[in-house]
Amino acid sequence: VFIVGERINASRKAIRASLEKLDATIIQAEARSQAAAGAHYIDVNGGTFPGREPELLSWLVDAVQKVTDLPLCVDSSDPAALTVALPKVKQARPMINSITLESERFTTVLGLAREHKAKLIALCQGEGLPASTAESKVDLASRLIDRLTASGIALDDLYVDPLVFPLATDPLSGKATLAAIREVMNRYPGVHTICGLTNVSHGLPARKLMNRTFLVAAISHGMDAVIADPTDTALMAGILASEALLGRDEYCMEFIQGFQNGKVV
Amino acid sequence: VFIVGERINASRKAIRASLEKLDATIIQAEARSQAAAGAHYIDVNGGTFPGREPELLSWLVDAVQKVTDLPLCVDSSDPAALTVALPKVKQARPMINSITLESERFTTVLGLAREHKAKLIALCQGEGLPASTAESKVDLASRLIDRLTASGIALDDLYVDPLVFPLATDPLSGKATLAAIREVMNRYPGVHTICGLTNVSHGLPARKLMNRTFLVAAISHGMDAVIADPTDTALMAGILASEALLGRDEYCMEFIQGFQNGKVV
Repeated sequence: VFIVGERINASRKAIRASLEKLDATIIQAEARSQAAAGAHYIDVNGGTFPGREPELLSWLVDAVQKVTDLPLCVDSSDPAALTVALPKVKQARPMINSITLESERFTTVLGLAREHKAKLIALCQGEGLPASTAESKVDLASRLIDRLTASGIALDDLYVDPLVFPLATDPLSGKATLAAIREVMNRYPGVHTICGLTNVSHGLPARKLMNRTFLVAAISHGMDAVIADPTDTALMAGILASEALLGRDEYCMEFIQGFQNGKVV
Repeated sequence: VFIVGERINASRKAIRASLEKLDATIIQAEARSQAAAGAHYIDVNGGTFPGREPELLSWLVDAVQKVTDLPLCVDSSDPAALTVALPKVKQARPMINSITLESERFTTVLGLAREHKAKLIALCQGEGLPASTAESKVDLASRLIDRLTASGIALDDLYVDPLVFPLATDPLSGKATLAAIREVMNRYPGVHTICGLTNVSHGLPARKLMNRTFLVAAISHGMDAVIADPTDTALMAGILASEALLGRDEYCMEFIQGFQNGKVV
């Protein structure tokens, strides 16, 4: 499972405070610890400081790439911020989080992805309300995949996020999301599916348990990437167990080594 | 999820020792603690003491039903032991663990199920080698379901066990078992699927983690019953989380209450 480390996100208080002071200490420590914990990409999200997002996102890119060789996942819903921050990326193949079917955003982010040869997280979101049923998620995913591949984006560079919503207010969202993952992976062999985990447990207690329960279920339905906290040991152990369970870990060697290294708990 | 408590099984040393001494103390304590932990049925397995299985299984039935009103799952691969033990059952609707397609066993256990109005665990096992692929598991499941329902067993009384094998030696067994569960549940609406969990992790470290990872994945593929240890808090928390994730726990109330009661950890 391909892991995008989520911890450098301005929705977290410590990161927001660091951004306000332009103090890279905590941010660089988070980059290092996520790299050590097994992240494949490091997400950087500069939040929504009015008018300052391009500047802060660029500053984050600079700060993080000073301390890690891992590639970056540049995370903003504002194409203007992506436009300014992406040229700062020195590593090959950044990832862009995210493109949607919203018309202007689609056009601008697609252009950026082509210019920077970026991998793309594609959210199942159009101009209207978010897609809540499996059918509407698959429909949006299909339109995204068809349009993006027709525009020259390789299937292997596409990470479709079906968008899971909080179970506390949308109790059928988990089931719909799992079904959408299975259908997208069956319909488009070679594409990837990805999800953020924190949404599903919003408003519930025991959020880490719910997040990793969703992750195990989603992996068993074919999801092959995740935006998550790689320093969460129980979560990572669930990934190792899932890989072995699905026959992707020959002789369960990674799982057994993980146990020997204290990663499987 | 329907839970058959597995702890009274002669493969466990303490139970075997109790059986050798015909000392019911530990066995009755296990019955009580499984009932308190949320088991729906209590499995009783008297092991394979040569020639004594009918006597010991009957003794177990007597010992357990003295301390709990929960119904019993009478567990033996030997139809002769089931024949002697089942008439001892006082509670309504025992469960028989298990019937297979092996010719003599099929005939005898079917007769017992009809006589005692028992629910039936049906193992995907014929005369030949165990079924290792999803297709062969579904084929055996279909033959079991078709023959048993044609013989008057209600679909709702049938618990099909696709038989998962140890990942350490059969790395594709998890994936095949999940696919078989999904297909059987799709093909026969109203039937149940069930699995023992311990097999999957045989020979691996961190067995409880692997068992509950398999359980979460299996529930997400439609499995609605399990033979497991209800006193394993992390496992039971995974069940509560799975029910909420799949939209079967209105407003996540059971999950939230479980957290408040210390059951969701």
